[in-house]
Amino acid sequence: MSVIDVLCGRPLRSSEERGEKLGAAAGISVFGLDALSSAAYGPEAALALLVSLGALSAVYIVPITVSIIILLWVVYFSYRQTIEAYPNGGGSYTVAGQNLGSFAGLLAAAALMIDYVLTAAVGISAGVGALVSAAPSLEPHTTGICIAILIVITLVNLRGVRETGVAFMIPTWLFVATLLITLAIGIVKAFAAGGHPTPVEAPPVLPAATGAVGLWLLLKAFSSGCTAMTGVEAVSNGVKAFREPVTKTAQKTLTIIVVILVAMLAGIAFLSRVYHIGATNPGPGYQSVLSQLTAAVVGRHTFYYITIASILLVLSLSANTAFADFPRLSRLLAQDGYLPAPLAVQGRRLVYTSGIIVLALLCGALLILFGGVTDRLIPLYAVGAFLAFTLSQAGMVVHWRRAGGRKSRAAMFVNLFGAICTGGTVLVVVTTKFVEGAWITVLMIPSIIALMYGIRRHYDGVTAEIANPEPLVPRDLRAPIVVMPMITWNKIVRQGLQFALNLSSEIHVLHVDCGNEREMDVRKSWSEDVEMPMKNAGLPAPKLTVLKSPYRFVINPIVDYVLAIECKEPKQQIAVIIPELVQKHWYQYFLHNQRAEWLKAALLLKGNEKIVIINVPWYLKS
Amino acid sequence: MSVIDVLCGRPLRSSEERGEKLGAAAGISVFGLDALSSAAYGPEAALALLVSLGALSAVYIVPITVSIIILLWVVYFSYRQTIEAYPNGGGSYTVAGQNLGSFAGLLAAAALMIDYVLTAAVGISAGVGALVSAAPSLEPHTTGICIAILIVITLVNLRGVRETGVAFMIPTWLFVATLLITLAIGIVKAFAAGGHPTPVEAPPVLPAATGAVGLWLLLKAFSSGCTAMTGVEAVSNGVKAFREPVTKTAQKTLTIIVVILVAMLAGIAFLSRVYHIGATNPGPGYQSVLSQLTAAVVGRHTFYYITIASILLVLSLSANTAFADFPRLSRLLAQDGYLPAPLAVQGRRLVYTSGIIVLALLCGALLILFGGVTDRLIPLYAVGAFLAFTLSQAGMVVHWRRAGGRKSRAAMFVNLFGAICTGGTVLVVVTTKFVEGAWITVLMIPSIIALMYGIRRHYDGVTAEIANPEPLVPRDLRAPIVVMPMITWNKIVRQGLQFALNLSSEIHVLHVDCGNEREMDVRKSWSEDVEMPMKNAGLPAPKLTVLKSPYRFVINPIVDYVLAIECKEPKQQIAVIIPELVQKHWYQYFLHNQRAEWLKAALLLKGNEKIVIINVPWYLKS
Repeated sequence: MSVIDVLCGRPLRSSEERGEKLGAAAGISVFGLDALSSAAYGPEAALALLVSLGALSAVYIVPITVSIIILLWVVYFSYRQTIEAYPNGGGSYTVAGQNLGSFAGLLAAAALMIDYVLTAAVGISAGVGALVSAAPSLEPHTTGICIAILIVITLVNLRGVRETGVAFMIPTWLFVATLLITLAIGIVKAFAAGGHPTPVEAPPVLPAATGAVGLWLLLKAFSSGCTAMTGVEAVSNGVKAFREPVTKTAQKTLTIIVVILVAMLAGIAFLSRVYHIGATNPGPGYQSVLSQLTAAVVGRHTFYYITIASILLVLSLSANTAFADFPRLSRLLAQDGYLPAPLAVQGRRLVYTSGIIVLALLCGALLILFGGVTDRLIPLYAVGAFLAFTLSQAGMVVHWRRAGGRKSRAAMFVNLFGAICTGGTVLVVVTTKFVEGAWITVLMIPSIIALMYGIRRHYDGVTAEIANPEPLVPRDLRAPIVVMPMITWNKIVRQGLQFALNLSSEIHVLHVDCGNEREMDVRKSWSEDVEMPMKNAGLPAPKLTVLKSPYRFVINPIVDYVLAIECKEPKQQIAVIIPELVQKHWYQYFLHNQRAEWLKAALLLKGNEKIVIINVPWYLKS
Repeated sequence: MSVIDVLCGRPLRSSEERGEKLGAAAGISVFGLDALSSAAYGPEAALALLVSLGALSAVYIVPITVSIIILLWVVYFSYRQTIEAYPNGGGSYTVAGQNLGSFAGLLAAAALMIDYVLTAAVGISAGVGALVSAAPSLEPHTTGICIAILIVITLVNLRGVRETGVAFMIPTWLFVATLLITLAIGIVKAFAAGGHPTPVEAPPVLPAATGAVGLWLLLKAFSSGCTAMTGVEAVSNGVKAFREPVTKTAQKTLTIIVVILVAMLAGIAFLSRVYHIGATNPGPGYQSVLSQLTAAVVGRHTFYYITIASILLVLSLSANTAFADFPRLSRLLAQDGYLPAPLAVQGRRLVYTSGIIVLALLCGALLILFGGVTDRLIPLYAVGAFLAFTLSQAGMVVHWRRAGGRKSRAAMFVNLFGAICTGGTVLVVVTTKFVEGAWITVLMIPSIIALMYGIRRHYDGVTAEIANPEPLVPRDLRAPIVVMPMITWNKIVRQGLQFALNLSSEIHVLHVDCGNEREMDVRKSWSEDVEMPMKNAGLPAPKLTVLKSPYRFVINPIVDYVLAIECKEPKQQIAVIIPELVQKHWYQYFLHNQRAEWLKAALLLKGNEKIVIINVPWYLKS
């Protein structure tokens, strides 16, 4: 157990759950990390789609970013209202479920679960993308580095993240500060140079255009760019964690996050335009957009490396927010019976261990499958996030209609507008990204919902089956028939038989004869050491039965014998005593036949409620 | 079970063990395969060592082969005598163990086990070597093909090889025939051309010499070439399988095998000389010596491909002989208590399943570790075989001395000479191959012996501990204290409690409270459905105890409670009833906490003989 203690920390008492409340500044790093870090891959994802336009890509990124920013404001106003209406935390699962019914809730939950897995995967892969831009020699090891970071994040989360408040704040602010400074310097330089600044380090020259501008292409770029908005919902999920006045603090936090995000998106688009920066293809020579941009504005010196390091850190930490959200959502679903019960169990460190492990496995599988390349993951991404946005807004519409009143009416229209905009975005994203990977998400969502309904049905069935037992019947004291296997007469068997005498006077001892001719010895010991003393005491002796086994099977004849008794005496309970040698060391496992285990498994598989299994352990002293 | 039936065949009755006896012709294919197939890699191994001599390597192979042939005759005469002295089968383990004591027996056994693993690995790798010589495009997949062949051989052996008598004879004779024909044609051509025949297809030109001839190099080449003699001992192991007159038939078989082997070795050496054939390096462009030789003599036509196919087959089948020998030796050792008992269990197909699987795993590990390259495996090989030869001969010396008489005296000297020659060879092999890999074998042998002694000590300890039980004590009928965990009052718990009433009147039911406030419900049901009926019947009610668990551990508090009772009542037995939900489908496993399993494991680990575990299963109907 001590290895686990070292890796995961000492167990925590239930009463140690933290009560600490967040102000706006801390709130931005805890709940804003995911949203803010999206700036590191959203614009790049849009530019990647425009690669075929060559130099024109840097031109078209501007109107695309403007539409994304408009959509972002719409979503912002919608979520401000959700915060006000659900001061206890209004996750999409809750809001959609309470207002639109359980199916809508599960739809939002399925979308969000996919979204969280992708947040973790994209966060890590984009962070590693920044790293290999700064250190191109690491490029061949992309997947390996991704997995290593995933393992570290998983271990940290299994410890629980109580102590990491400050650890979150420093990189968040470092990221925001370095990126805003870079953008500011870049903008000043651009204006000083009359719109044509000279890059300190020139970005890779954009290739000649190979395709034409078209609505389809621009819609695709918009869809990819929308990933820049993922994570905006986080504040509304965690309103409860804020300091009084809860609603105001949360709203203030959301406002600051959105303002910073808008500034970053706008700045990146503008500087891409004036510095002619586009996306590069994954593989050798890859350079992330932010790396190109920083190098163009300030050159590759200390500041550049600090910026890249903060991007790597912040993206890894944004993966970390998925590790907080996914287990919490799984727990809600498990408590409602829609996911396996172990997901609702709080582990020794007050975290939901199973949820963390499930997320780590899914995320690891994604990273390996897609080679740790952000660009390939993006098409799967935005669908889940925007579907959850839409369901949440639609739920709010119903919420306001139920509430009634004039103010609610205005609020309803804001959310309705939000729902329409985000719903439209879902359609655009699914349509334009379907072939590239959105089909995976579209297939996964109904599968997950079907799974959740199936699980719920199973639990309902089990609960109904075992509920409302009749009162205990005090006098039903019919002793069971006892059956016990024996290889030879030794101390282990004697101990088992001695226990059997406590249980019943009808005892069947079975010796399976595989042709090794031990039968005579066994019968002799039996008559001397068992039958004689019982006879002398005037008691009925246990019965020895020898079963022939021409195929050398040992388990099957015993199980068949038990089932035969069960058939003959349908009203009797049968207790099968299995004497068991307990080994002191794990390697002794290989030295003995595991027949006791196999026999137990076979009896449980083929048996029924009337057959009870009793392990009488024997502990080796040597 | 039906998948296993298809892959491994129906189970066989013990009485189906075969009684069929072998004549000399069948004996050659069954027991000679290993020895004869060595001709396919022995000369090549020697040539590989001489590569640095360039064209001179084809010259020096002749004297090296001559010394190997002389050694082979010495070994032949020694084993003729072993056959006579041990008509029931005189494996090295038996002969050395009976005459020189158990340590020498184990030394021989350890050497042989290593030897068998290497026979399997080298057989497969050399066969694949022949294959990639004929089809160079397969070369990059060497390891994969090796593993595929290993899997096929393993499956065939798990089925048992009863039906494969003919399957052995055809390829053996095809191999012997094609190779002897090739050699004969080559020799005729060589004499017709006055010692300088023109190759039909020229072998790769031998490179210029880069090293000088030296004793050390020649000794190394001799050591590698000695692998051509491995497998000669097989006949002496299996004398019992021959037709009457047993000894004569076996001796005749051995004679034929050795004569063919000598002819092949001599022919290969001669033709390598006149056609200037040397070894090629592993990797792209690799050509086995036999492939070069056949192509040089007859060209790459149908006959060439038949020859290569028969070499591949025979080498794979020689790996197969290890699959017959290794499990049989492990079984002898397991019966004597020197290896884990499961190795002595005859499986459903009358084969020693565990031994086959252990061999397959070891052989697979070797093939992967050494990339399926014969050349790298050879240095590990000859040590074990020659050590076993030596111990067997030395054992025979003692045997003859004990027998006394004049004839025995002569026989003793033959075996003594054999022992000295093979013993000398062991020294040469270990010295010259130490750095290249013989050190692995030298380290493994004592480790295996230490392991075998350790296992034997364990079994002796266990046997002594459980032997000679006292007779049963008829009246010791003190009912045990019953302990049972409960989450809520439901039908599963009721069933367990009902069984508990049969056992004892002292029943403790434990409810672990992790802070989910179910305690009140539990207490209410308890008083209504348990205490009331018992009270009405005038019987003592089971006792409900609520255990607080601030760390949310469920297992530990129960185990601690049981151990506390055990301390307080050192004379009472304690029966822990664990109600268990039996799932119908494997995937339901993930839907429920496996607490019953964990609790059982924890109780076995921390408990003692007085604590008995009772599983009361509940079967889900839905």
